[in-house]
Amino acid sequence: MTDRRNVLWIMCDQLRFDYLGCAGHPSLKTPNIDRLAARGVRFTNAYVQSPICGPSRMSFYTGRYVHSHGATWNAIPLPAGEPTLGDHLRAEGVRSVLVGKTHMKADLDGMMRLGIDPETEIGVRIAECGFEPYERDDGLHPDGPYDPDPRYDDYLREHGFDGENPWEQWANSAEDEDGRILSGWLLSHADKPARVDEPHSETAYMTDRAMDFIREAKADARPWCLHLSYIKPHWPYIVPAPYHDMYGPDDVLPPVRSEEERRDPHPVYASYMTERFSRAFSRDEVRERVIPAYMGLISQIDDHLGRLMDFLEAEGLLETTLIVFTSDHGDYLGDHWLGEKELFHTPSVKIPLIIADPDPKADATRGSVSDALVEAIDLAPTFLEYFAGKTKPNVLEGASLMPHLRGDTVSEWRGYVISECDYAMRRARTDLERPVARSRMFMICDGRWKYVYAEGLRPMLFDLESDPQEFTDLGADPAHEDERARLKDALFAWSRRVHNRITITDEQIAAKAGGELRGGILIGYWDEDEVEEARRDQKPGAPL
Amino acid sequence: MTDRRNVLWIMCDQLRFDYLGCAGHPSLKTPNIDRLAARGVRFTNAYVQSPICGPSRMSFYTGRYVHSHGATWNAIPLPAGEPTLGDHLRAEGVRSVLVGKTHMKADLDGMMRLGIDPETEIGVRIAECGFEPYERDDGLHPDGPYDPDPRYDDYLREHGFDGENPWEQWANSAEDEDGRILSGWLLSHADKPARVDEPHSETAYMTDRAMDFIREAKADARPWCLHLSYIKPHWPYIVPAPYHDMYGPDDVLPPVRSEEERRDPHPVYASYMTERFSRAFSRDEVRERVIPAYMGLISQIDDHLGRLMDFLEAEGLLETTLIVFTSDHGDYLGDHWLGEKELFHTPSVKIPLIIADPDPKADATRGSVSDALVEAIDLAPTFLEYFAGKTKPNVLEGASLMPHLRGDTVSEWRGYVISECDYAMRRARTDLERPVARSRMFMICDGRWKYVYAEGLRPMLFDLESDPQEFTDLGADPAHEDERARLKDALFAWSRRVHNRITITDEQIAAKAGGELRGGILIGYWDEDEVEEARRDQKPGAPL
Repeated sequence: MTDRRNVLWIMCDQLRFDYLGCAGHPSLKTPNIDRLAARGVRFTNAYVQSPICGPSRMSFYTGRYVHSHGATWNAIPLPAGEPTLGDHLRAEGVRSVLVGKTHMKADLDGMMRLGIDPETEIGVRIAECGFEPYERDDGLHPDGPYDPDPRYDDYLREHGFDGENPWEQWANSAEDEDGRILSGWLLSHADKPARVDEPHSETAYMTDRAMDFIREAKADARPWCLHLSYIKPHWPYIVPAPYHDMYGPDDVLPPVRSEEERRDPHPVYASYMTERFSRAFSRDEVRERVIPAYMGLISQIDDHLGRLMDFLEAEGLLETTLIVFTSDHGDYLGDHWLGEKELFHTPSVKIPLIIADPDPKADATRGSVSDALVEAIDLAPTFLEYFAGKTKPNVLEGASLMPHLRGDTVSEWRGYVISECDYAMRRARTDLERPVARSRMFMICDGRWKYVYAEGLRPMLFDLESDPQEFTDLGADPAHEDERARLKDALFAWSRRVHNRITITDEQIAAKAGGELRGGILIGYWDEDEVEEARRDQKPGAPL
Repeated sequence: MTDRRNVLWIMCDQLRFDYLGCAGHPSLKTPNIDRLAARGVRFTNAYVQSPICGPSRMSFYTGRYVHSHGATWNAIPLPAGEPTLGDHLRAEGVRSVLVGKTHMKADLDGMMRLGIDPETEIGVRIAECGFEPYERDDGLHPDGPYDPDPRYDDYLREHGFDGENPWEQWANSAEDEDGRILSGWLLSHADKPARVDEPHSETAYMTDRAMDFIREAKADARPWCLHLSYIKPHWPYIVPAPYHDMYGPDDVLPPVRSEEERRDPHPVYASYMTERFSRAFSRDEVRERVIPAYMGLISQIDDHLGRLMDFLEAEGLLETTLIVFTSDHGDYLGDHWLGEKELFHTPSVKIPLIIADPDPKADATRGSVSDALVEAIDLAPTFLEYFAGKTKPNVLEGASLMPHLRGDTVSEWRGYVISECDYAMRRARTDLERPVARSRMFMICDGRWKYVYAEGLRPMLFDLESDPQEFTDLGADPAHEDERARLKDALFAWSRRVHNRITITDEQIAAKAGGELRGGILIGYWDEDEVEEARRDQKPGAPL
């Protein structure tokens, strides 16, 4: 064991908050994640800043709201100037390292404007949203515009899984009795095993790569924050044996949906109901075919996390490594007549979040559950505080979770969480004839009330206490005008906040106040006597 | 005459909108500026994004609101990643050149994070908010923390004005009968001539330097946007002969103020009334001593602009150069019991703005006056459209003024202007015990109603139609609840806007929509038949 502290930050993609044994799923087996929860704190009210990969991750990686960093949907580049978690940790001597997915799209125009060559060390780092890319793999390599030749494809070829696109043809396809390839993208194939053998699947490979990094990092004195970012259980919903038939239709929970929801849905919600993925997941045969695969993918991740924990223990790192397990957003899986994510119902906007802090100060909270209102942007300041004992509130808009982990009295905590939705890339924009820049919705939730402000459209409102399943939209109910006004006001206060004064701290501003006289700037003085008098009276730091 | 187009963008510092002959001042002589107005359009409702140098200028130079760029007060660095007017023009082959003041403070931390050496060409440009600094001089060089040795000091020494700090000792000081130096910072000396002789004053020197640049630029094929940015009539209020006694107490207009304003002022306003500069300018002897000097400084600028226009004409550039005359904010000069600027009364937040467009298409508007609601951030898109026939609405938050200059039908124009005030550096913050980040006010004005939202405090409201002098604060008047609610809603809409999605245009987003199938990402398909069908039906660009 060493004194060096590390962070292992494990992220799944599209993992629902409630698809874990420890979160109460009746038949899903996740013993290793449950064991992690027993060693740490499980947060039951953790929300993402936007329920879709790109913007959600950019908020995780910058510690800033989508409104602040501007990458409002997938494939919208994070501006090159945005400071990242990697920058903040690097300044404290900590390596920030990536194995897996970020969904980052590099701001090449911005880099060119700033004279930054994407091939240099700093260029690579900016293009990878602040990480040192030990293994970058966004986990989507169809025969399209994505990276045509990731390292994982070479790995597959080296292990006998040859082909033009081994990712697509082996790791994410099945085959029929005649050896014909069946695309894993297609939901009808979700019950078949992936062609790749399990030890060479993506989840196995990325876990191996994380261990490779950890082994190599032993020769380096610097502490690290390793972001192990799995693509699964995200699409394609296909998993190798034995996980493909570990679960069956009997394990599929009934969809959380109601006919009431289809009577007069909010226009954006109504449009999402008509999306292909929603229509698919509203069919029982799709849910019964896909959800067992989804669960198999989760149990597979769990097994590899068990392997990883054993490795950490063997390396003597378990007691110095803060371990985080989370996801970038959820998955409707047919709840609310929807598939995929993006909107603000609980299965989409809430995420699993478990943090196991090895510090003895955290002993009091081990195995506990916290219902504090947590946002994805809280992780960056948590890590910074863990390593450096401080945060950067002028840049990082989240709050460190350390007091929750160490059982400290949390005297002041946020009263609500915010999430954002940009539906400009979806048919809802054209259906509703909305301008691109105003195809936006904001969620504000105080734990009980969830209010959704939709630009140019009516709002939504749910009472999570009387209606935890979110079937009854009170957005137009005159009886709840006060709640809507209160939450709208809070949203207004949030939107007015200073989001971009990232170059100076509040403390620096307070210290600068009144510095003009000290600097020789004499504003408002009639004559020498007044200046003399003021110089005599001046208290350092006091405004004049 | 050449086909090459240029922009000459002249900015004064702290020049009130109404201190020009053409703006109706009864005794102030500004014949050259008046002549420029006769050749162009004079805008009577031009507002700055914040009535103080630093943030106002950062908005001018980025074309973005203070809420977006984050440099909320003087000496708060503009983040290194913020794109500037200079960047946008450079991409079109146009040089963006500075002679004079910007009040930019470089974001050295941000540059270091991005690996940008401040000594390189790009580093210098970023440190100068996008300009190529032909002559950078912020015009404040007291014996304090400012640049101790600007080029102007060497120039003064070369011309016989020797000393440790010639800027302070010669250009901004007077002397008494015994040759003792009298600081120009002190208001009691404002009626004395500066020690420097006029042709070597700052205004003269900067005008000379602008001409030097224009001469040198003839050898360069690139068009230019030259920002000639005078420090005057900003403090120190002192001017060389013969301007020091060109105006006298008889030229001083009575202060625009009323006892009503002192009865129950808004708490922030009340605190500003107690600032030293406000107490000073509430005294008649101060106004009578200072305002004639302020007027002399303006007439001096006017004379040098006459010299500059003659030069442009002689160089054959007058007919290809778009000329802008403006200021970064106003000056209370004792109106409303205030000195300086920062708050939102008209003398502080409104600026003079004259634009003379040489294009024949602008002939119809020459000599006209426009009362359109204009913001400082409109200049950047105006210049970009002038040079390149397009703007960048995803980055530039203002609107091009070209239609107003060319007499085109302006079918859609903004309904209100926004300005912001950060009083964290002022005693108002400590007086009112406000947190630094919430020592903020927002103004929204629709031309008739001016509403001021003050974080955590009551709002202000003025009816500019019935009360053009802004004596009656209707912020608490129950009769005007509707106006306040309407303007508050509009401010909320503004604050929710997408301010930071600068890496992609709305058109690019619309074109990307529905691109998943084309990219091989098959989300929601049950089997091959569905994919086949979708591929057949797909219209390019249409969401699926």
